[in-house]
Amino acid sequence: MSLITPSHIQLNEEGRLKHFLTTEGLSKPLLTEILDTADSFISTQERSVKTVPLLRGKTVVNLFFENSTRTRSTFELAAKRLSANILNLDIARSATSKGETLMDTLWNLESMYSDMFVVRHADSGAAHFIAQHITPNVAVINAGDGRHAHPTQAMLDMLTIRREKGPFENLTVAIVGDILHSRVARSQIYALKTLGSTDIRVIGPNTLIPKDIESLGVRAFNNMAQGLKGVDVVIMLRLQKERMQAALLPSEAEYYRLFGLSTDKLALANPGAIVMHPGPINRGVEIESAVADGPQSVILKQVSNGIPMRMAVMAMAMGGQNQTRQEEG
Amino acid sequence: MSLITPSHIQLNEEGRLKHFLTTEGLSKPLLTEILDTADSFISTQERSVKTVPLLRGKTVVNLFFENSTRTRSTFELAAKRLSANILNLDIARSATSKGETLMDTLWNLESMYSDMFVVRHADSGAAHFIAQHITPNVAVINAGDGRHAHPTQAMLDMLTIRREKGPFENLTVAIVGDILHSRVARSQIYALKTLGSTDIRVIGPNTLIPKDIESLGVRAFNNMAQGLKGVDVVIMLRLQKERMQAALLPSEAEYYRLFGLSTDKLALANPGAIVMHPGPINRGVEIESAVADGPQSVILKQVSNGIPMRMAVMAMAMGGQNQTRQEEG
Amino acid sequence: MSLITPSHIQLNEEGRLKHFLTTEGLSKPLLTEILDTADSFISTQERSVKTVPLLRGKTVVNLFFENSTRTRSTFELAAKRLSANILNLDIARSATSKGETLMDTLWNLESMYSDMFVVRHADSGAAHFIAQHITPNVAVINAGDGRHAHPTQAMLDMLTIRREKGPFENLTVAIVGDILHSRVARSQIYALKTLGSTDIRVIGPNTLIPKDIESLGVRAFNNMAQGLKGVDVVIMLRLQKERMQAALLPSEAEYYRLFGLSTDKLALANPGAIVMHPGPINRGVEIESAVADGPQSVILKQVSNGIPMRMAVMAMAMGGQNQTRQEEG
Repeated sequence: MSLITPSHIQLNEEGRLKHFLTTEGLSKPLLTEILDTADSFISTQERSVKTVPLLRGKTVVNLFFENSTRTRSTFELAAKRLSANILNLDIARSATSKGETLMDTLWNLESMYSDMFVVRHADSGAAHFIAQHITPNVAVINAGDGRHAHPTQAMLDMLTIRREKGPFENLTVAIVGDILHSRVARSQIYALKTLGSTDIRVIGPNTLIPKDIESLGVRAFNNMAQGLKGVDVVIMLRLQKERMQAALLPSEAEYYRLFGLSTDKLALANPGAIVMHPGPINRGVEIESAVADGPQSVILKQVSNGIPMRMAVMAMAMGGQNQTRQEEG
Repeated sequence: MSLITPSHIQLNEEGRLKHFLTTEGLSKPLLTEILDTADSFISTQERSVKTVPLLRGKTVVNLFFENSTRTRSTFELAAKRLSANILNLDIARSATSKGETLMDTLWNLESMYSDMFVVRHADSGAAHFIAQHITPNVAVINAGDGRHAHPTQAMLDMLTIRREKGPFENLTVAIVGDILHSRVARSQIYALKTLGSTDIRVIGPNTLIPKDIESLGVRAFNNMAQGLKGVDVVIMLRLQKERMQAALLPSEAEYYRLFGLSTDKLALANPGAIVMHPGPINRGVEIESAVADGPQSVILKQVSNGIPMRMAVMAMAMGGQNQTRQEEG
Repeated sequence: MSLITPSHIQLNEEGRLKHFLTTEGLSKPLLTEILDTADSFISTQERSVKTVPLLRGKTVVNLFFENSTRTRSTFELAAKRLSANILNLDIARSATSKGETLMDTLWNLESMYSDMFVVRHADSGAAHFIAQHITPNVAVINAGDGRHAHPTQAMLDMLTIRREKGPFENLTVAIVGDILHSRVARSQIYALKTLGSTDIRVIGPNTLIPKDIESLGVRAFNNMAQGLKGVDVVIMLRLQKERMQAALLPSEAEYYRLFGLSTDKLALANPGAIVMHPGPINRGVEIESAVADGPQSVILKQVSNGIPMRMAVMAMAMGGQNQTRQEEG
């Protein structure tokens, strides 16, 4: 199912993170260290002064080949709270329009003594490609590449699950919606498996579930009543309206009737189950407002956890880069 | 005349500013404290190093639902000179285009541990609405809402008047132009009344003066010769060309002949009268270049005073928020 | 050939830089000091913490009347690494669209206690005009004005030449391409002459070489074989496709055959010759990929040198302003 060969290019020779490209292939101790680091940043975010000097004097470039104000803003805030300098580049509208190649753009940016690229791209594998082709000194953080991976979103979700529901070993987790096109679902499944969840389910219409999904060790359901039974965590995915136009989906109303998370359907899960969504939510399309705003929803906690999680992977990848530089130097 | 019920939601339990939404209903001591605080920031702006650490580690979000590069820039500079982190969001072009509701956008931003929202919105009452619906920890500064209020503009104007012409009690002030649609005029009138001005005048064509304006304690004139007589401060408003197309106004030339501030008309005011304008000025439409650039003009001093005034209300509102948090904590 | 009268408005009374508008008319000791200052900043860029506090508390405004993400980004990074506050203004899309005049925009910005304007403009002479009309306290850096000058690009090129090929006195330098429309070529020629190069050549089709070019002390060639013979430095210019549409140029293929820098043509120069290009490069139009990426290319070193060079002129101009202020104060 993975479009990009998993690889250890995100680790340095000591096994420390030096890029953050995918949750696939990372060990349980490393994922746990990421969660612990993010946990420690949460307390800094609740202080009056939220900045820490970990990336002082470093330059982070937000390289967004695909527009996403929301994701860009979270990385911008995380970088600023680490005291980094940040350069926002909307690549789609700038250099490439002058006919420059992608690699020329990247080589130019690395030549400006950049320390980190946060990359968002519509093509699966773009962040891997960039990490493999730029100078070893620049850390690459994947902020979403095509259908492939969105590892910071997956890890902020893991942070939220761990803080709300305790250890992963005993949890049943259901991911609901368009699994086929979701980089978020893919990154979540790898992280959940590694962290110890034994009962992971995907729920959605047949057209939106990959044929070979069960090879990842998850169970597929086409029916909410069956899929949600006994579940501790319900992760709703955002419905992309393009899918409906492409006839992969019935009407919005029909989709909501079958797969939308209403109060009634949520009652099928365990009583203390939490409800998650990566946002932005489509109220009344994939989720009922009463559920999104209700006592079981942790959707805004996910947003809050997104900042310390991004701070954590940025700080860790920069640490791994510095370690590599010192060994070479 | 006020579209939004005046309220004390901008004050904390100690009566200190925790939001800054309108000049209406604020006491004379509080307005005076704002002016004094801004005065003290002017000296920091004349130094070689202009930054002060008052908002270090805080996050200010420029939430502009209505585009205004000029106003956004002044808040951005003020925030940076207070050492805050600032996130500029052009909301019109981002999250809401994905169908997210206004409140979802706000809840997301507050969940990212934001400390202050600077809000510009085309709807009257938007800043009040936001202040009432977000978490108590976030200070809201109104950067202009519909026809309702533009309180930082009004207060930088008060600062300029006080510095140039001394106490308000003895001053005669005329506001000239489209009073009906002006949030600036409304905020100025409330501030001038509270600060002690006893002779406030509005001058403009009948179609652009609200019917009930005199209930605010001002006198209305349709004639510059009568209105400017004995005036110490002449505040020109910017003419919105949309009004002319809506047939609320005669031609530009006719408007200028009747209400444009020429050297001749300015001679009708007191000899030492100062000339003000919130900018950007339409030369030859509402004001003659010789007047705008002449010795009585303080238009650029208004711009200069805008930075310390914005620093003052941002610092005071953040102080009021911190006080509230400590009492609750 | 110069469209703007050279002048000493960029120097203060002590002969120190207070603006940086053009390389024309600057003395050899001053150009050398700029190179030495930039050299000293290179080491700061290779450190883990790249920021220095030289412009702490200062406000730099990126005033781009002509869009250039690449150049704007280099100035933004340079300003941030000098610890300045920076305000990016895309003037084309903001204030002027409200009908404000250029001078009103500038007066407003200087009134906000700005310390430096970095100006990019499509009109030759714009940066000079601005430096002459704003308050004496604001330093102006020319980031490219029409066909006139692009002095920071020229000086980063001089820095690259000096670091790669040693003293200018013994170097033969060829500039290849559209000399007629190139502000870069003009600024390079003045700098090279002053720094001591005695054999400067321009190479291009007759239609793209100014008639009076030899009055600048350079030799013109229409033929690469003749022009490149014995050359130590080959500077390729970017081909603007508009020129081809205006029939000043043959087809792209024909241009490449005659003036494109291929491996074969490069072999005509001296064996250790370096290849330069201001970027972004058009691969296969003015330069062969094998040359651009080959061992003689220093194109990415030019990019790297661009940051410390911009830091140098910004720091020096601010120093010259402060000196002037102290003398007046």
